[in-house]
Amino acid sequence: MLNEKLNWRYAVKKMDPSKAVAQDKVDRILEAIQLAPTSSGLQPFEVIVVTNPDIKAKLRDVGYNQAQITDASHVLVFAAWDNYTAERVDAVVDQLVEERGIPRSAVSDYYDNLKSMLLPRDADVNFEHAARQAYIAFGIGLTAAAFEEVDSTPMEGFDAAAVDEILGLRARGLRSVTLLPLGYRAAEGDWLQGMKKVRKPLAEMVTEVA
Amino acid sequence: MLNEKLNWRYAVKKMDPSKAVAQDKVDRILEAIQLAPTSSGLQPFEVIVVTNPDIKAKLRDVGYNQAQITDASHVLVFAAWDNYTAERVDAVVDQLVEERGIPRSAVSDYYDNLKSMLLPRDADVNFEHAARQAYIAFGIGLTAAAFEEVDSTPMEGFDAAAVDEILGLRARGLRSVTLLPLGYRAAEGDWLQGMKKVRKPLAEMVTEVA
Repeated sequence: MLNEKLNWRYAVKKMDPSKAVAQDKVDRILEAIQLAPTSSGLQPFEVIVVTNPDIKAKLRDVGYNQAQITDASHVLVFAAWDNYTAERVDAVVDQLVEERGIPRSAVSDYYDNLKSMLLPRDADVNFEHAARQAYIAFGIGLTAAAFEEVDSTPMEGFDAAAVDEILGLRARGLRSVTLLPLGYRAAEGDWLQGMKKVRKPLAEMVTEVA
Repeated sequence: MLNEKLNWRYAVKKMDPSKAVAQDKVDRILEAIQLAPTSSGLQPFEVIVVTNPDIKAKLRDVGYNQAQITDASHVLVFAAWDNYTAERVDAVVDQLVEERGIPRSAVSDYYDNLKSMLLPRDADVNFEHAARQAYIAFGIGLTAAAFEEVDSTPMEGFDAAAVDEILGLRARGLRSVTLLPLGYRAAEGDWLQGMKKVRKPLAEMVTEVA
């Protein structure tokens, strides 16, 4: 069932600009992204949902002119925290304590220890760690899109600094890591459509230590 | 449907060592991992499936003694390429050309350009990029486990260099990035079981640019 959906999806090269994704579908995709597990529950990323045509055009300009960015009705921008800070970790703990109705002392040792590990590290190391968490959610988000029979194109090929500038991300302590345009495959004009999905054989990808 | 599965799953802290995951379920989880999209189709990672009790015990020793590593019937080790090489990229192109029955010239410009970008970069930069691709598959793999009603515990907390040593990964040009023990939640002994799943509200996680 899941694998049928994963076989159905592909990195669409040409989307139909006349077809918009319904809001309830977008909402379920965002909810799946929200449900992604992350290291210590930090969820160290945000998602910017761009539907504004002018902003999409600017993103396309710094995204190797890939037409999906403007033809898609929604462009999800995954942006990871630029660093871990005490405030960011504490906000996670605050929510945890409140929603679970547990004493702060039940989790404070764990998160104090976490902060003592994360906070002295270079910002770039922490950003990279945060980016990996965003990629977990990115993988789940594109899977969720397939479940909604919504097409998507996972993209790393863009000028991240320029995207950050267009969306004002750095001022918010965020750095863009991936784009996920959401839309519907065009009937024509996509060279990849109908091509065999090629994957490394399991015998090469998997080793058993039994 | 997908989101129900994602709500069902949690990072199980105590697995029942008497329950093994059936091979057909493991196979479908691996197939989902295989279907994960990756940058330029490189699939720059491998998965080691550890069922051997002695090896699982060794992994647990270098994995903060987390009991799921030995209680799980299968431990998936996601290991990313330590670097991109011409041979590795060429092998991808060879398979693509053969399986799609297209002339090499149809893709050679693209992949030559890719090599000119990847090969001069530091190995660490390339490893980090490969690791991100592995995280996409990791996210899909844990989702696939939930679909099979198989429990899993996404893990980053282990001594990666020691895991590499135990499994002989560096000699194969691989570096471990995550573990995913697969098994079944124990009826008792898991402090996290039954606790509310806590996630950042969508209103905080998502910004709309409309």
